Amino acid sequence: MSEKYQQLVKRLADVHNLDRTAAVLGWDQQTLMPAGGAAARAAQLSTVARLAHEIFTSDETARLIEDAAAELYGADYNSDEASLIRVTREDYEDAVKLPAELVAEISRATTMAHEVWAKARQNNSFQSFLPALEPIIDLHLRVADYIGYADQPYDALIDRYERGITTARVKEIFDGHKPDLIALIAAVNENEGRVNDSVLHQPFDIDKQRDFALDVVKNFGFDFNRGLQAVSVHPFCTHFSRDDVRMTTRFNPDFLNPALFGMMHEAGHGMYEQGSPASLEGTPLSGGTSLGVHESQSRMWENLVGRSKGFWTWALPRLKQQFPGQFDSVSLDTFYKAINKVQRSFIRVEADEATYNLHIMLRFDLETDMIAGKVKPADLSEEWNDRFESFFGIAPPTYTLGVLQDVHWSMGLVGYFATYALGNLLSVQYYNKAVQDRPSIPDDIANGKFDTLLTWLNENIHQHGRKYTSDELTRRVTGEGIQSRDYIQYLQTKFGEVYGL
Amino acid sequence: MSEKYQQLVKRLADVHNLDRTAAVLGWDQQTLMPAGGAAARAAQLSTVARLAHEIFTSDETARLIEDAAAELYGADYNSDEASLIRVTREDYEDAVKLPAELVAEISRATTMAHEVWAKARQNNSFQSFLPALEPIIDLHLRVADYIGYADQPYDALIDRYERGITTARVKEIFDGHKPDLIALIAAVNENEGRVNDSVLHQPFDIDKQRDFALDVVKNFGFDFNRGLQAVSVHPFCTHFSRDDVRMTTRFNPDFLNPALFGMMHEAGHGMYEQGSPASLEGTPLSGGTSLGVHESQSRMWENLVGRSKGFWTWALPRLKQQFPGQFDSVSLDTFYKAINKVQRSFIRVEADEATYNLHIMLRFDLETDMIAGKVKPADLSEEWNDRFESFFGIAPPTYTLGVLQDVHWSMGLVGYFATYALGNLLSVQYYNKAVQDRPSIPDDIANGKFDTLLTWLNENIHQHGRKYTSDELTRRVTGEGIQSRDYIQYLQTKFGEVYGL
Repeated sequence: MSEKYQQLVKRLADVHNLDRTAAVLGWDQQTLMPAGGAAARAAQLSTVARLAHEIFTSDETARLIEDAAAELYGADYNSDEASLIRVTREDYEDAVKLPAELVAEISRATTMAHEVWAKARQNNSFQSFLPALEPIIDLHLRVADYIGYADQPYDALIDRYERGITTARVKEIFDGHKPDLIALIAAVNENEGRVNDSVLHQPFDIDKQRDFALDVVKNFGFDFNRGLQAVSVHPFCTHFSRDDVRMTTRFNPDFLNPALFGMMHEAGHGMYEQGSPASLEGTPLSGGTSLGVHESQSRMWENLVGRSKGFWTWALPRLKQQFPGQFDSVSLDTFYKAINKVQRSFIRVEADEATYNLHIMLRFDLETDMIAGKVKPADLSEEWNDRFESFFGIAPPTYTLGVLQDVHWSMGLVGYFATYALGNLLSVQYYNKAVQDRPSIPDDIANGKFDTLLTWLNENIHQHGRKYTSDELTRRVTGEGIQSRDYIQYLQTKFGEVYGL
Repeated sequence: MSEKYQQLVKRLADVHNLDRTAAVLGWDQQTLMPAGGAAARAAQLSTVARLAHEIFTSDETARLIEDAAAELYGADYNSDEASLIRVTREDYEDAVKLPAELVAEISRATTMAHEVWAKARQNNSFQSFLPALEPIIDLHLRVADYIGYADQPYDALIDRYERGITTARVKEIFDGHKPDLIALIAAVNENEGRVNDSVLHQPFDIDKQRDFALDVVKNFGFDFNRGLQAVSVHPFCTHFSRDDVRMTTRFNPDFLNPALFGMMHEAGHGMYEQGSPASLEGTPLSGGTSLGVHESQSRMWENLVGRSKGFWTWALPRLKQQFPGQFDSVSLDTFYKAINKVQRSFIRVEADEATYNLHIMLRFDLETDMIAGKVKPADLSEEWNDRFESFFGIAPPTYTLGVLQDVHWSMGLVGYFATYALGNLLSVQYYNKAVQDRPSIPDDIANGKFDTLLTWLNENIHQHGRKYTSDELTRRVTGEGIQSRDYIQYLQTKFGEVYGL
């Protein structure tokens, strides 16, 4: 019975093991590797990635997929078997669409571009990045052609990061809440003096920061028997299985937020991976389903929980104990407002909840216009500055604080940015549904009891692994697709209260 | 020109990259991995090892070896090309000799045995280890049959760890210095009161221990731009390339020796890898040539340098500075004697220079007798105790302190032990030749100048990578094969002085 299916699962386990092995190589590279190790590490990663690709795209894999599909014809759409065949077939079709030569060309172009970008950013020189950017955009037009699209080339690119979503749908969602965002930010700006976050800018002992943040995410439910935390320049979360999830953070000795909220964020990603069901471990169905849904988990723990008044009802006394004398006279209200200060700023990764999605919309507009041929890469820096000013009312004083701030384009991640904003929207949709299903969640959080929420996430989101697209999952969970209504309402309520609007 | 050779090198690079990738997986497993990660890590290692084996033992590899050999027929024996073909052909012949089924059976038996051994050791129960040991010995008789041998089955097993050496040769070398060792130890024992090592047994701050040891091995010449140090339960050294060498240590808060001499030891291994020539990187000729030669490097830095009076002429004032008040009244002579205290002890890994090789001879005798059918695994524990008493004059009070102390048999490392003792012999042979070539070495060491020795090792040992067997290399360097004369003379001189014999 289901012999072909078992053979398929076995073959895919090799691909999975190589893929997770590459993740270990990447983790070590970013957290520990000495400078000298770079060349050999690139060679190791290249061999492992090539073999994984070769095994996955082989005729043997294709045959096993079709044999297993025939064997299990008529199986329930929601079953593990039907889902594995469906998702694997889609992965396979994506993987074979791009000629190896094009993949190699992109790899060469981005390897080179990454260094050029780092130097250009340092030197505030968009002109020196341009010759590296242009071929990347050109190559992605070719990628779109190979992948194919119904409406416009950008559809093919965004589908690589958020399967099933279209450019038109993202644009509709973004356009639907952009005016409200701009209005909210304008209202906040008129009252910016009402919130002071100076308590967050003090010297904080790094070991104490680490211990406090670790305690918080342990209470959230991150399982340190099945994961750990380390330090890296750029915080990230990765996993080698559901039982070995790694997250990193960085510490600022004079500012509480980066490590604390950063670790909540990465733990949100991490608990999604830890919640992937044991029965799907080692298969293509294990792990999170899309970048957007993944980001919904990190943003939920960071913002919906970590920046809520309820959470700090429980956490502030603990923080005061951890940093004696540093918060003694700070009230819950003052602290809550401080961590929710809204600021028009140039850098996306430092943006607050209210302004964050605007940063994404800017990138999405510019990317879609470049791919549609409406904006030339050569004009990108000026377009960035002009549009930034129209969105935020301030203009970036340098390219480093503008068009050169993000690593994504240099890495060839074209079509990626929108998932950050979609994650914000989904975080509120899911959280609202969780509270509707289990009304005690806000009170539980205020009492330091986080498993009501985590269990709901396990049962409604995590347990499905990669079975469903983000749209399928969201409809299953909330009864409707992704929308911005909940998010805007959440922001208006929250910041209306914080700023007394 | 040499097109086939280039194709061979390219194919072997994949095998090499997978092999080094497995080393990264192992490093992470032993230094960092959370408990939950074990199952997935085993699966990752299994896939990577199997693919490396499949690629290396494929017909395509065999064809490329023979094509390249034909293409380069007549090339100088010492050239990179001829050496690579020669060594690869030997590796290939070894790799294809064992049927995949037997390799898998050994893997299953040892995976199971390792846990059984750990528990048996904890419970001092040889009987509970026996059912796991017996199949391992049986399987290695089959291994010997598949590999083939000229004289006796054990030849095939020892050749896997020290290519080109025979059981008879090892026995001759061991028998040649065993009486002298026993006589030396007896003479020392009669004067054991002359050396007191209590200064080494004090509370030592762990961070200060680490800093001191790191400073020592940095001065030795370990390049921390191309390597690093971490903590693990069992100290080891591994490498991912000549430019990424990792070593571990463990700290005892009340005893100076383990971390300090342990790190010198691992740095000796590490500097051998860092000294492997850049031109051979990524090929089968990179790295150290055999376990014995590798051990000669670690033992040379640990003992010939690290336990010499000259070294401590330079190092003791620094140690006094690092631990103020803890060594103030300790003279160089007292300290030198303390670190060279000879003790009849039960545990090999804690043995001093004088007794160490006796521990190995015991294991070598028992292993060869088991493989020759003269000692049954069931009788091993009593044989161990009887022979130990005849070698050392004391009998182990428990199996944990006797037959169950080493991990090797449970891991299927049958034929491995001798290389430790061979390394000791080689360390003195090489060191004597180095001093003969560059007579300033002892004075340089006493002045904290270690590059005279390291450069000699780079030029005479390291630069050859795996081109030569240990015997070839030793004859090239010293003009004769491995012998015990130098080692015994060194021990007699050193301990004659330390104990006033």
